[in-house]
Amino acid sequence: MDFGIILKTLGKLLIAESAFLFFPLAVSFYYNEGDTMAFIITIVITAIVGFLLNIYKSKKGIVRYREGFMIVSLGWLLVSIFGAFPFLIAGTFDTFTNAFFETVSGFTTTGATVLENIEMQPHGILFWRAFTHWLGGMGILVFTLAFIPTMGLSNLNILKAESPGPTTSKLVPKIAKTAQLLYIIYFTLTVVEVIVLKIAGMSLFESVTHAFATMGTGGFSPKNLSIGAYAMPSYEWIIIGFMILAGANFSLYYGVLVGNIKTLFKDREFQFYIAVIIISTVLITINITSAWEDIALTFRQASFQVASIISTTGFTSLDYSIWPPFSKMILFVLMFFGGCAGSTGGAIKQVRILVIFKYVKRELQKLIHPNSVISIRMGGKVVPENVVQNIVAFVLLYMLLFVGFSVILLTQNLDLVSSTSAVAATLGNVGPGFGVVGPAMNYNGLTVFTKYVLSLAMILGRLEVFTVLIIFTPFFWQE
Amino acid sequence: MDFGIILKTLGKLLIAESAFLFFPLAVSFYYNEGDTMAFIITIVITAIVGFLLNIYKSKKGIVRYREGFMIVSLGWLLVSIFGAFPFLIAGTFDTFTNAFFETVSGFTTTGATVLENIEMQPHGILFWRAFTHWLGGMGILVFTLAFIPTMGLSNLNILKAESPGPTTSKLVPKIAKTAQLLYIIYFTLTVVEVIVLKIAGMSLFESVTHAFATMGTGGFSPKNLSIGAYAMPSYEWIIIGFMILAGANFSLYYGVLVGNIKTLFKDREFQFYIAVIIISTVLITINITSAWEDIALTFRQASFQVASIISTTGFTSLDYSIWPPFSKMILFVLMFFGGCAGSTGGAIKQVRILVIFKYVKRELQKLIHPNSVISIRMGGKVVPENVVQNIVAFVLLYMLLFVGFSVILLTQNLDLVSSTSAVAATLGNVGPGFGVVGPAMNYNGLTVFTKYVLSLAMILGRLEVFTVLIIFTPFFWQE
Repeated sequence: MDFGIILKTLGKLLIAESAFLFFPLAVSFYYNEGDTMAFIITIVITAIVGFLLNIYKSKKGIVRYREGFMIVSLGWLLVSIFGAFPFLIAGTFDTFTNAFFETVSGFTTTGATVLENIEMQPHGILFWRAFTHWLGGMGILVFTLAFIPTMGLSNLNILKAESPGPTTSKLVPKIAKTAQLLYIIYFTLTVVEVIVLKIAGMSLFESVTHAFATMGTGGFSPKNLSIGAYAMPSYEWIIIGFMILAGANFSLYYGVLVGNIKTLFKDREFQFYIAVIIISTVLITINITSAWEDIALTFRQASFQVASIISTTGFTSLDYSIWPPFSKMILFVLMFFGGCAGSTGGAIKQVRILVIFKYVKRELQKLIHPNSVISIRMGGKVVPENVVQNIVAFVLLYMLLFVGFSVILLTQNLDLVSSTSAVAATLGNVGPGFGVVGPAMNYNGLTVFTKYVLSLAMILGRLEVFTVLIIFTPFFWQE
Repeated sequence: MDFGIILKTLGKLLIAESAFLFFPLAVSFYYNEGDTMAFIITIVITAIVGFLLNIYKSKKGIVRYREGFMIVSLGWLLVSIFGAFPFLIAGTFDTFTNAFFETVSGFTTTGATVLENIEMQPHGILFWRAFTHWLGGMGILVFTLAFIPTMGLSNLNILKAESPGPTTSKLVPKIAKTAQLLYIIYFTLTVVEVIVLKIAGMSLFESVTHAFATMGTGGFSPKNLSIGAYAMPSYEWIIIGFMILAGANFSLYYGVLVGNIKTLFKDREFQFYIAVIIISTVLITINITSAWEDIALTFRQASFQVASIISTTGFTSLDYSIWPPFSKMILFVLMFFGGCAGSTGGAIKQVRILVIFKYVKRELQKLIHPNSVISIRMGGKVVPENVVQNIVAFVLLYMLLFVGFSVILLTQNLDLVSSTSAVAATLGNVGPGFGVVGPAMNYNGLTVFTKYVLSLAMILGRLEVFTVLIIFTPFFWQE
């Protein structure tokens, strides 16, 4: 293990974080609500620690598998610890536990909050809270590395460990170039959402923070009632649209940008994703329409909740915990589905669910044709067997973690629905769950132990489980 | 498709069923409680239909894959339909739905009941109810075929389709001989349990019916309160012991019988099974001990519930639905674990769970050593990759069915806990669940639609899912 390069890279990461903190600092200057010093102090501390770590020398200057996993796991822990300082210093939270939970929830784009009265907070703090989503969305580490090409490191192993989705297809030969292209798309979509929300009538500050939270599929809103605070159907439809966009594979938009719109609709995962959204929305609309008279309202609310949960954003437009069990179960299942590979969405991801279905179908075919060799195909292309194995193992591990975390939470006097949905919502980076962590409640009532367990679940979920877990295996430490 | 051999074999099966019905007939004669005619009528009808079907001529006289699946799926449906007649004719149930549900629950060794007042029923009916467990336990079809060797058919495909567990290891070269050996063990253990319960003080009738329900891992008791009706710790400990025995691989007892006791404790699945039982019991004991003062009682109740659910028997000794959520979650998870391969227990089975853990571990190892080929081993032996694939696909399909059935049940105005636990308890052939299908309740309150859906779940679970589902795929019907 080359600890030199691990510490050095972590140092660069903290320097980058302190640089990013200038944005909320600027906002706090503008509004002048007493949180300016919180950002200045954090920037100074983070930068100092960053520069100190950056002094370390690497032995070989290359990031191998092991170092990649360590950098990413420790990196996410570090940015969350330092990112929690503004909340602590500005007095947003009394305890480090809450500040840390909120920051982890931000960077992992979960959006599970422990903040009781959001609207009472200064704008700088609320900006930072939403900005963590945006930074975490496409991977703060890759972000850092993509724009510091002078580092001269082999970043592929970091990209592999951090990026969402089972396959990282390079759009252009150079890895850094691919990352930059994806960021340009990410940045552009965010700007477009800000403009559209602003035109629809939202204030600039709320447009920006909501756009950060949407495009990062995070879900922190500057409003106590989230999107439910507005009585504007247009806001809901705009955000529904961008949530669905944020949950799809960003590589597809590259195809659209270079003039090949067909790539979008020919993509099997995208087709499946849209089909799941439509079917879920229709089922929930039918299920709740008997209670409500207004079919347009019913349809919009069903669409919003489905888009919010499948993209793992976690904005809420109403308290869906009062919906009938059937609708809640659909939403619960969607918490596991998540967005597409290469999106900012979390959870298992559509392509993996699709592969699971094909895997089961193949086994049924083999019962009839026991000696035939059948490949799993996705849009005509054969999925290599080692990728299939990885996907299957991921899904199994995800389910094991879901059960394991749920059992752990049940030792903390939570009921079954609250504990299982809290785990599904944090492991899947969704945000709100059901029961005591439902959309009308928050995570503040949980025990300190539970908050750290769920912080771990959020990081595990965001880093696609393997990256973090591998560090706790004995064979990781055997050379 | 050779429909001749399918119908012919189904005919033999019904003839066998009518022969088995002479046992409850004898019981009803002895007690003379008005149910004798119900058995006589059923025997006559079943025998006539059996003989009529037996007239069909087979084209080739061999059971291929397809015919095997059809025979087993239709066979279990048929024996359940005809087996329901005594309940209907004797007036045990008013509706065919309830009589059918109870019989499916019996043959599949589920033990989920729709009978409101069990103790009011005549002894013949209660005997038949328990006897269905015993017949279903090791597979009524293999049972039939093992003792009718004159059929001259290739029965391997029927055994494959019907027998529980991923691998059917032949103890002796001939398949029929292996089946006979397993039945001798099954029969012997049942007799031993009857004797032990009788010596402990239970009446002969109750000893026999409880032994049927234990060894078949069924769970139908002739008592309204199941084992909770007795205030005798000795009964509970005896039944705990036999439930654990019934949930283990019967092939191991063959090793013990031929003098090699080590085979039992060297078996990796058996070790895992016992470890899961011990850990679960200890966790639940700790969790509920604060509420109860009596540690011996607590430990016994925890042991009973764990043994009952992990072996998928489903006897109850108390209303565990009042236990804290943590203990209930442990039991809920055990509903998925189930017994060992080659036992009469249902659900996913211990060996598959073990393979899943090893599968995930292998994927973590491959992250560090991407180019290495790692085999999954069980007790030193390599598990062939196609067996691993089958196991993984089974577990995934099982989870998909669990989610799918739960969603369907939620359309019937059930709450989340009741619907998910009803599905887990029927698909896993356990019996009682939580909520409205908890140990103090029964399945009678459910809608007619729900009862048929759960009957399907029970048959799917008992026949290990693939066997039944394959029939509904288009490629099954393509020659």
